[in-house]
Amino acid sequence: MTLERSVADPRPPALIPAFAWPCRVYWEDTDAGGVVYHARYLHFLERARSEWFRSLGIAQQRLREVDGIVFVVHRMQLAFNAPARLDDLLSATVAIENLRSASFSVRQQLLREPAAAALVEADVRIACLDAASFRPRPIPNHLLQEIVPA
Amino acid sequence: MTLERSVADPRPPALIPAFAWPCRVYWEDTDAGGVVYHARYLHFLERARSEWFRSLGIAQQRLREVDGIVFVVHRMQLAFNAPARLDDLLSATVAIENLRSASFSVRQQLLREPAAAALVEADVRIACLDAASFRPRPIPNHLLQEIVPA
Amino acid sequence: MTLERSVADPRPPALIPAFAWPCRVYWEDTDAGGVVYHARYLHFLERARSEWFRSLGIAQQRLREVDGIVFVVHRMQLAFNAPARLDDLLSATVAIENLRSASFSVRQQLLREPAAAALVEADVRIACLDAASFRPRPIPNHLLQEIVPA
Amino acid sequence: MTLERSVADPRPPALIPAFAWPCRVYWEDTDAGGVVYHARYLHFLERARSEWFRSLGIAQQRLREVDGIVFVVHRMQLAFNAPARLDDLLSATVAIENLRSASFSVRQQLLREPAAAALVEADVRIACLDAASFRPRPIPNHLLQEIVPA
Repeated sequence: MTLERSVADPRPPALIPAFAWPCRVYWEDTDAGGVVYHARYLHFLERARSEWFRSLGIAQQRLREVDGIVFVVHRMQLAFNAPARLDDLLSATVAIENLRSASFSVRQQLLREPAAAALVEADVRIACLDAASFRPRPIPNHLLQEIVPA
Repeated sequence: MTLERSVADPRPPALIPAFAWPCRVYWEDTDAGGVVYHARYLHFLERARSEWFRSLGIAQQRLREVDGIVFVVHRMQLAFNAPARLDDLLSATVAIENLRSASFSVRQQLLREPAAAALVEADVRIACLDAASFRPRPIPNHLLQEIVPA
Repeated sequence: MTLERSVADPRPPALIPAFAWPCRVYWEDTDAGGVVYHARYLHFLERARSEWFRSLGIAQQRLREVDGIVFVVHRMQLAFNAPARLDDLLSATVAIENLRSASFSVRQQLLREPAAAALVEADVRIACLDAASFRPRPIPNHLLQEIVPA
Repeated sequence: MTLERSVADPRPPALIPAFAWPCRVYWEDTDAGGVVYHARYLHFLERARSEWFRSLGIAQQRLREVDGIVFVVHRMQLAFNAPARLDDLLSATVAIENLRSASFSVRQQLLREPAAAALVEADVRIACLDAASFRPRPIPNHLLQEIVPA
């Protein structure tokens, strides 16, 4: 699979992203190893997806309360290539790769400027679920049109 | 006020607690300063309160879904006396100090054995709120009897 | 004490702050009660202090490595007046109240625009410590001049 | 690759693990969707790896300070099959799959008893790095002997 192969590559060059969001590294993000705690990178990735949704006019709070759906991470492949540190300013990118009726995949990177290499890379599959039952639900048509690249 | 004075004291001796819960320090709890990130101590304190509730037979998930109430932190006074570090085994204590109709106060400490001094001390006021409106609600009678010391 | 009294007031009006920093509420910040988890407000407060330092030209990473000092939270008084929710855009303020040789105090608020009331208020005492021994150290003169309001 | 295939399987039965560690779900772990925030599962997985190390007599704080090495997550594949909720008691498992000179792989699961299916599954590659330079370092011989199954 293409995604598999690209994650396995050593420090591939940055992709041309569909969306980018700045994330500053604070004390809360670091650990006693002196670098960012690995699970915190997932927070940065999720902030970028949320801001990407916001940029498309998709309000997640309303999705949950009005449409009765939530988007959740179903699968992730992560490569931690190099560490980020306190005070670093990162750029978290989102590029859509695949769109199905009840899920979609994005490729994400965490970049530290100025750099051609990604500190962290992720392939993320997002599922659309019923907010109450957590069972798969088709992505509403009005969202599909917003998610697919123009 | 008594609480004020005791929090202001330098490294007071450990109180005789009503309840204690062990908390191990993991990488997730530390920051690049090499010690526990200050906000993480609040997690340890909250785990101890949750386990204290559990020991009294109070299930918070059911409180929310059946009784329609949640207990939330309304005020806190915190003294960070000395740092905890990776791999430390702490004891988080809970001692009830004050019980009103819609709130109660607990005094909590984080201790590292063997030690007579508390790394962290906290006076915490907990409010009983309606789970939907977040407005004050009287603590149900059956809970009052469980919370007060025998 | 003045700080005591102001924290005890119900929802006091916003102070005129010395510094303000925007903080967006993401999924990571919320809990199953549907609102922001109480300890996460401390992250927002710390981000504002870090950005206030940055705005003064103070780089914490360099402070630690070059000057051998760290600033740590020594005491906190917190009032959680009203909850923030997913997607909220908050403003975290910092106003210096007190400056001593080895510590200083700031008054902080978390505001949700447009609003005259603070969701969260905090009085925070910050100590200057030796980065290795965690013992008190005088704040270097060049920092004192940057921290005091012009 | 074997790991790829097994992660892709729908809710595979629990593996017979080499090590298991209990993890309780607290408020801190949940989000406004009413379930555990996805990045928090990585904390549970890391606690299990740390406790597995501790059970083998490996102290990570000493590894860093005495041997000058740290173990860091280099790659992860994650499948989030079903959500955990507040008050759930999970079991986090660790089974070693692959040991090289400067890295090793573990297969981990998060199980909610009584259940034959894993809520979360992870394949994790851990690299041994120099604590200062973050460059690969051979795993010391005395550790290799402790990590390999008897």
